[in-house]
Amino acid sequence: MAALDAVLSDIDRDLDNSLERLFAWLRIESISTDPAYAGECRRAAEWLKGDLAALGFDASLRETGGHPVVLAHAPKPGAPHVLFYGHYDVQPVDPLELWETTPFDPRLVSLPDGRRAISARGAADDKGQVMTFVEACRAWKAIHGELPVGVTLLIEGAEENGSKDLPEWVEANRDELKADLVLVCDTGMWDRATPAITSSLRGLSYFEVFVRCADRDLHSGLFGGAAANPIRVLSRLISDLHDDDGRITLPGFYDGVRETPAEVLEQWRGLDLTPESFLGPVGLGLPAGERGRMLIEQIQSRPTCDVNGIVGGYTGEGTKTVIAGQASAKISFRLVDDQDPEAIAASFESFVRARIPADCSVEIVTHKGSRAIALPFDMPALAAAKGALAEEWGVPPVTIGSGGSIPIVGDFKRSLGLDSLLVGFGLDDDRVHSPNEKYDLTSFHKGTRSWARILAALAEPGAVGR
Amino acid sequence: MAALDAVLSDIDRDLDNSLERLFAWLRIESISTDPAYAGECRRAAEWLKGDLAALGFDASLRETGGHPVVLAHAPKPGAPHVLFYGHYDVQPVDPLELWETTPFDPRLVSLPDGRRAISARGAADDKGQVMTFVEACRAWKAIHGELPVGVTLLIEGAEENGSKDLPEWVEANRDELKADLVLVCDTGMWDRATPAITSSLRGLSYFEVFVRCADRDLHSGLFGGAAANPIRVLSRLISDLHDDDGRITLPGFYDGVRETPAEVLEQWRGLDLTPESFLGPVGLGLPAGERGRMLIEQIQSRPTCDVNGIVGGYTGEGTKTVIAGQASAKISFRLVDDQDPEAIAASFESFVRARIPADCSVEIVTHKGSRAIALPFDMPALAAAKGALAEEWGVPPVTIGSGGSIPIVGDFKRSLGLDSLLVGFGLDDDRVHSPNEKYDLTSFHKGTRSWARILAALAEPGAVGR
Repeated sequence: MAALDAVLSDIDRDLDNSLERLFAWLRIESISTDPAYAGECRRAAEWLKGDLAALGFDASLRETGGHPVVLAHAPKPGAPHVLFYGHYDVQPVDPLELWETTPFDPRLVSLPDGRRAISARGAADDKGQVMTFVEACRAWKAIHGELPVGVTLLIEGAEENGSKDLPEWVEANRDELKADLVLVCDTGMWDRATPAITSSLRGLSYFEVFVRCADRDLHSGLFGGAAANPIRVLSRLISDLHDDDGRITLPGFYDGVRETPAEVLEQWRGLDLTPESFLGPVGLGLPAGERGRMLIEQIQSRPTCDVNGIVGGYTGEGTKTVIAGQASAKISFRLVDDQDPEAIAASFESFVRARIPADCSVEIVTHKGSRAIALPFDMPALAAAKGALAEEWGVPPVTIGSGGSIPIVGDFKRSLGLDSLLVGFGLDDDRVHSPNEKYDLTSFHKGTRSWARILAALAEPGAVGR
Repeated sequence: MAALDAVLSDIDRDLDNSLERLFAWLRIESISTDPAYAGECRRAAEWLKGDLAALGFDASLRETGGHPVVLAHAPKPGAPHVLFYGHYDVQPVDPLELWETTPFDPRLVSLPDGRRAISARGAADDKGQVMTFVEACRAWKAIHGELPVGVTLLIEGAEENGSKDLPEWVEANRDELKADLVLVCDTGMWDRATPAITSSLRGLSYFEVFVRCADRDLHSGLFGGAAANPIRVLSRLISDLHDDDGRITLPGFYDGVRETPAEVLEQWRGLDLTPESFLGPVGLGLPAGERGRMLIEQIQSRPTCDVNGIVGGYTGEGTKTVIAGQASAKISFRLVDDQDPEAIAASFESFVRARIPADCSVEIVTHKGSRAIALPFDMPALAAAKGALAEEWGVPPVTIGSGGSIPIVGDFKRSLGLDSLLVGFGLDDDRVHSPNEKYDLTSFHKGTRSWARILAALAEPGAVGR
């Protein structure tokens, strides 16, 4: 594999320049959920388009209902063609005061254990991961003038906001997106030494609930005891969502949830994922999910419900004896197997409405839901990628389920008939969606080398099963 | 009563100037709970000191641990001496966007039913009410050069923040505060036509609860199902505070709560306070308190629990799949009869701690509590004030209990051995503690006239029972 070795050497040699390019992209504040940053999202898209064009890709921005999509083609007649998916948008940065570095001023930092890491919002989710693939392509082009397979990149800007407009856009552009396989780099390693391929993803249902009682804030001295309190109504409702065993009480919620086969459970037990190793690093120690389930089941194969935010009444300093007129919460469910987001939305709505006093009102905003995903274990590309990752990391990759959701993967299957190979190099301590997000320098460097190897492996006859 | 009539005429004649003086005071942003407004609180105190000095009072600012107290004396040897209490501090103004006028730019507005009202933060609670007494004194001084009784004004600046430092200050200044009776103007009328004297006050216990789980915000996809969610913990705790009949579940909470005598209940029934008349104006219609209790019991004679504020996780626009590291709530209890704030604080703390997962932590901030207050029905001053109010309003005043709390009234009894006569002219629709707080022009005008009459009545032999 002299051809590949030369590419890998080029990646090592060019690492500093690769970092400079990534940093330039990370400096763009592409927060997709806040309309105030729409301009920054477009700038991030333009930056990537320019970089890919410089690499010889036929790159363009495509308008959607929301932030633009970056689309870039490098066809290779006769060779397999892969569609690489990622996103250039990032999560909000609040609470800002908890950041040790400035979220959009990327820098290399040393972790307490000596690891080097890239600290910035988006470093891991997902700009850093996207660039591992782009840099792998750059090295192939630099050394051989071409890629081992045909490649189309589809990098969207609304993943952190539910990818609302992308499915429709994908459906409308099916011909241009023709490929043999989808590659996704938005997942993680099993641990720092062990690469992973994600073969299943939890789905997501996300709701916002606004409970409205009095038409104004009230003095609790005058009205306390007589006026409905929206925070109390909301708290009761949230409390009712789980029973004492941690099971979710929504009628029909567990319809379509399958029991994990005993042999898989056995394999998971072998992974020895302990509360200490998984929860210890974030200051916790007791699995909070369904009683009687292994921790790995709670985070991978079982559906969950979480309140992602709540606010109501006086939240400033000091005391205020007020009864709020309104309180609201963001409530989401992680789905598995065949759970149906529409059925859950309907069940959730009646569950909520049944708990609103007759003289109060509720507004429920339902964000786009996604079904869970599972990939065929016998996919040839899976074997090819496993081999490539084993070569790079010196240990065979594990095949895992992810608790996270990448809704678009389901749309790729539905609209394009394509399976997705999910390979990523994130770590559990990357703090994605939190202050001080980081991406290990090793993840970035060896991640890039891993993609260079995977591209080569996918070029082998039969690797993408056509 | 020619002497009094001349004073009343002067009040009518000087009304516009009285309003100008009140507006000047209302323009000072004396929010006591927010340290950022400490300077404004002092300005409000200085303004009042200056106005009282101009009236011939021996006025001064006195330092406390917090905002200064305004103290002003106008002794009258041989005559009864009254201590008038009020506060110059106001509630915060958020949410600002709900105000139709600027909170600290007072103006006269017309209400839909044609009433004229003063719109501003503090218009009713308590600057407007304090000025009804000051303007009554001004008229007496203007016409007769002196007041009918000796008067000391004690106007504090931390009532909206629990009057933390005042009790100690009162205890330390007992000699200078010697009087025969306390007058308080921080309560309301029964309705627009019927004045009221408040003979009982609910006490207050106020807590802030901070639930801390993970040491950072987590991605609900990676940790959902495994990590304790502080919003869920807090919601369950809040939900547990009431049973399905609306009773509060804190162990021992109802110790010291007495049943209201049948004859009093009968009298209350006669007042015909309906959900429509009381809750209708704020957009509600169903009493939310203890099942089986009259609305008037729920707001006057029964203890209550309300959540005054809650916040946790992502509360911005759009979605964020986060599990917060911390969530917090402000929870308060209104107390009656002999309920003991200390016992309730202890019960609350163990109630809360019992509901915190072993790998999470909780911080409970306990704000100053106050016992409920009840005044002797046979107090001579009560009869004198009733007569004066009947003269002014043409209908006899009702004697009511208030759901609100004025903790210092208990301290006046303990430290000074003085009962307090609570007379106020606020209305249920004044929106105290809410956006668009107002004070009816009639409350201000006839309230001033009422105090002029009460001062005269208290000068009559035996009126203050010495």
